[in-house]
Amino acid sequence: CGLIPDSSFLPADPGHPVKCSPVIIDNIPLNGPTVNVLASENFIHQSMSIIVENAIKKATDVREKVCEWRSPEQLKELLDLELRDGGESESEILQRFKDAIRYSVKTSECLKFNELRSEHRDTTLGKWLPEYTYEVAPVFTLAEEAVLKKMMELIGWKDGGDGIFNAGGSMSNMYAVNLARYRCCPDIKENGLSAAPRLVMFTSQECHYSISKAAALLGIGTKNVYAIPSDERGKMIPSALEEQILSAKSEGAVPFMVNATAGTTVLGAFDPIDVIADICEKHNLWLHVDACWGGAALVSSKHKHLLKGIHRADSVAWNPHKMLMACLQCSAFMVRDKTSLLQRCHSARASYLFQQDKFYDVSYDTGDKSVQCSRKPDAFKIWLMWKALGSKELEQRVDRALAMARYLAEEIKKREGFRLLMEPEYANICFWYIPPSLQTLPDGPELWEKLHKVAPVIKERMMKKGSMMVGYQPHGEKANFFRMIIISPQVSRQDMDFVLDEINNLGKDL
Amino acid sequence: CGLIPDSSFLPADPGHPVKCSPVIIDNIPLNGPTVNVLASENFIHQSMSIIVENAIKKATDVREKVCEWRSPEQLKELLDLELRDGGESESEILQRFKDAIRYSVKTSECLKFNELRSEHRDTTLGKWLPEYTYEVAPVFTLAEEAVLKKMMELIGWKDGGDGIFNAGGSMSNMYAVNLARYRCCPDIKENGLSAAPRLVMFTSQECHYSISKAAALLGIGTKNVYAIPSDERGKMIPSALEEQILSAKSEGAVPFMVNATAGTTVLGAFDPIDVIADICEKHNLWLHVDACWGGAALVSSKHKHLLKGIHRADSVAWNPHKMLMACLQCSAFMVRDKTSLLQRCHSARASYLFQQDKFYDVSYDTGDKSVQCSRKPDAFKIWLMWKALGSKELEQRVDRALAMARYLAEEIKKREGFRLLMEPEYANICFWYIPPSLQTLPDGPELWEKLHKVAPVIKERMMKKGSMMVGYQPHGEKANFFRMIIISPQVSRQDMDFVLDEINNLGKDL
Repeated sequence: CGLIPDSSFLPADPGHPVKCSPVIIDNIPLNGPTVNVLASENFIHQSMSIIVENAIKKATDVREKVCEWRSPEQLKELLDLELRDGGESESEILQRFKDAIRYSVKTSECLKFNELRSEHRDTTLGKWLPEYTYEVAPVFTLAEEAVLKKMMELIGWKDGGDGIFNAGGSMSNMYAVNLARYRCCPDIKENGLSAAPRLVMFTSQECHYSISKAAALLGIGTKNVYAIPSDERGKMIPSALEEQILSAKSEGAVPFMVNATAGTTVLGAFDPIDVIADICEKHNLWLHVDACWGGAALVSSKHKHLLKGIHRADSVAWNPHKMLMACLQCSAFMVRDKTSLLQRCHSARASYLFQQDKFYDVSYDTGDKSVQCSRKPDAFKIWLMWKALGSKELEQRVDRALAMARYLAEEIKKREGFRLLMEPEYANICFWYIPPSLQTLPDGPELWEKLHKVAPVIKERMMKKGSMMVGYQPHGEKANFFRMIIISPQVSRQDMDFVLDEINNLGKDL
Repeated sequence: CGLIPDSSFLPADPGHPVKCSPVIIDNIPLNGPTVNVLASENFIHQSMSIIVENAIKKATDVREKVCEWRSPEQLKELLDLELRDGGESESEILQRFKDAIRYSVKTSECLKFNELRSEHRDTTLGKWLPEYTYEVAPVFTLAEEAVLKKMMELIGWKDGGDGIFNAGGSMSNMYAVNLARYRCCPDIKENGLSAAPRLVMFTSQECHYSISKAAALLGIGTKNVYAIPSDERGKMIPSALEEQILSAKSEGAVPFMVNATAGTTVLGAFDPIDVIADICEKHNLWLHVDACWGGAALVSSKHKHLLKGIHRADSVAWNPHKMLMACLQCSAFMVRDKTSLLQRCHSARASYLFQQDKFYDVSYDTGDKSVQCSRKPDAFKIWLMWKALGSKELEQRVDRALAMARYLAEEIKKREGFRLLMEPEYANICFWYIPPSLQTLPDGPELWEKLHKVAPVIKERMMKKGSMMVGYQPHGEKANFFRMIIISPQVSRQDMDFVLDEINNLGKDL
């Protein structure tokens, strides 16, 4: 089939054959892409016209209102914020877009002096206004609440919880460390750590590097992040966790949190949350789940078992900008606590932002939960997308991506010169390409030393040719390997074939 | 004149008179707005077409390259990144826009699997790709470098320095605290604070609340942020700073940094940087200048004296998304150090992102300087804007905004029922509105108690009417007052008149 997507989406090119025999994995046909990007052009132009007419022009017309004020309760009724299984039509979404503009503050308006900024050029979807108080971002504040509610429902927190969107998964993990510490020793907020005991946290050796960055930043120290060994699939070994907790206690240190990773960066591994939760309960430790990457599996009834036990977590980080494909940034941090721990931990109560004598329910002023001041209204992006697609379509996308990953893994096993690092359980496919010149070498130091130099050369060649971008890295003792991440509903199984063909083309002379 | 902007920009409306007698402040005529927003409609549509054609369509065409690879050196020559006094025409800017897309990685491309994300919908200006390595964001990495260079030149760091754009001024201030602490006690990164001495930092009582949030987050403790009294204009009193440094030392604590604010949030006050720098030198303390709001004065030869001495700072936070009007977020953190302190302080050296065996100069992989992982390419927004306007036009905008603030202050002094908190030195105009019923009350507790309740009612009325948004707050002992912030080149002096008229309309019955 070559690299031409399904014929139903692109005009037939006489130079390229377009007939393919269907490939079906997990009952999912994997031929063409499922999203017709070209058809969205019209939608893009309509959205832009709405922005120009409703946001820019009206906002610069002094006879128009700065904001169509509604109380949180009224606005919730008007906007129908709930996220459901089914999606909505393009025209319904465009109407939602108009409504969002209508009830948002028009910052283009000359007469908006509420805070230290003006943003008359910043009128793109989900980009109008910083979010920290309801009055400057009524629609976005409520959209954030609706998205968090839905995400917490998928996590399994039946009674809800609290949360905030922020500037990336690294920030979410940092929030988790800070909250865990605050629950353990609330005095540290005021008194600092210099008079506190040595606090220790635990995470697997496969975790994201932001955990260690957070420990450095928060004054906990990277040395006090105890790295728990993982098994050969990259999953934290729970018995090793318990050993290290006991060992830390015997050293006189104070364990305060465990970070479990749901979807590690390199291998896509899921730590066994349920068993880890048992250990955390036993030792009264905060359990944070870094599900930035793997959280998307929660929308799939087929794959959510990967995160079994996540409802027992104290906090969860989950980035819809990864597999759910919202635009960067779109990162949620959620806490099971409902005693305003998030607010108490982070608040500074600036009197010039969070006035208590306002005329509406100031619990909607979410800004003081954040360590940022202005935040972009990131939640609105996933809210609108979820409205458009519905939970069912999001689920199909995740299922399709994981079936595609499975297809790629099978192809790698079939092809000479390719070697899978391990069977995938998520969308990370890690593999070596072994050029013909090395295929006869026995498995040993010489092979791995030579193989280590292969991926960087192929990467350089593909970048300069511009044919694709596939990342590589070493990992632990393992020589440089390629890592494919399957997310987009735009990719087809022909693309997977192309990747392998192209790596072979680029590297077969090495 | 009413609320109609200058007749050269809007068609004459028979219902509204458009002739105004010119008002000139500081040699700057203040009648109509200087920016014709409606004329930018065509530019917006052209930009969108370029995005659709060059980014979205080409990126989904598998026959197009994922990226037109150039080395940093080649790309610098091709792009002409330097920021100059003069601006460029719309057609030149559109061409720059095309070039930026051309040499950026097209994430819409099916075959871009380098990292854990795909962003085929995220193709708006300055929004393509996360920035952390040169290979995924070649244009944005270089644009960031060019903007930082220009900003550091304006600060007066003749030999340059280092820096990074991040998710807001609060984050920048947090970076400053972390760097200052790292220079003072580098072991804390690894060992944590529990075995460290009590570290103490200093900032004025008027500083932004993010300083105290940073101290809480970083484990320093809010109690160890010593609040230095400010004078009646809101400026830090240097002698009080020195007293508190000595007092902290006598308590056995270790002072490590001073935060000076250039443009306080409420009053727009500038701390005397030069005198504070003397004290910091004497006591070997890190000097951070929070110029998030006031930094814009550096582009104006008329107003840069407000930040006299800023070149002596160790670090500076400056948000071009405030008075320079780039879109949120656009926040720079800059360090005078050139020994890679920023990198050493924050690095975690993740092997799956910052491979050292790449085929280009990896010093362009800026991501490990950051506590975030993915960052949005925020610097590109101000880079493109600076190219379009040139330094001279930016200077005129700042000068005009400050002249407009001066005009408003003069009007307040002229009008009955209005009372200025203090003469402005920047763009913050703080004032009370005293309704007729209170105008006869003598200055005393009863007046202020009643006045405290006036602003919230007027605010509620203006929000519900939608006529404008002007913020209010109490401050120290001072009863609720209004605070106008003048930034936008779109506002005219007629708008200023309108604000005062409208406050009177909304509140005269109180």
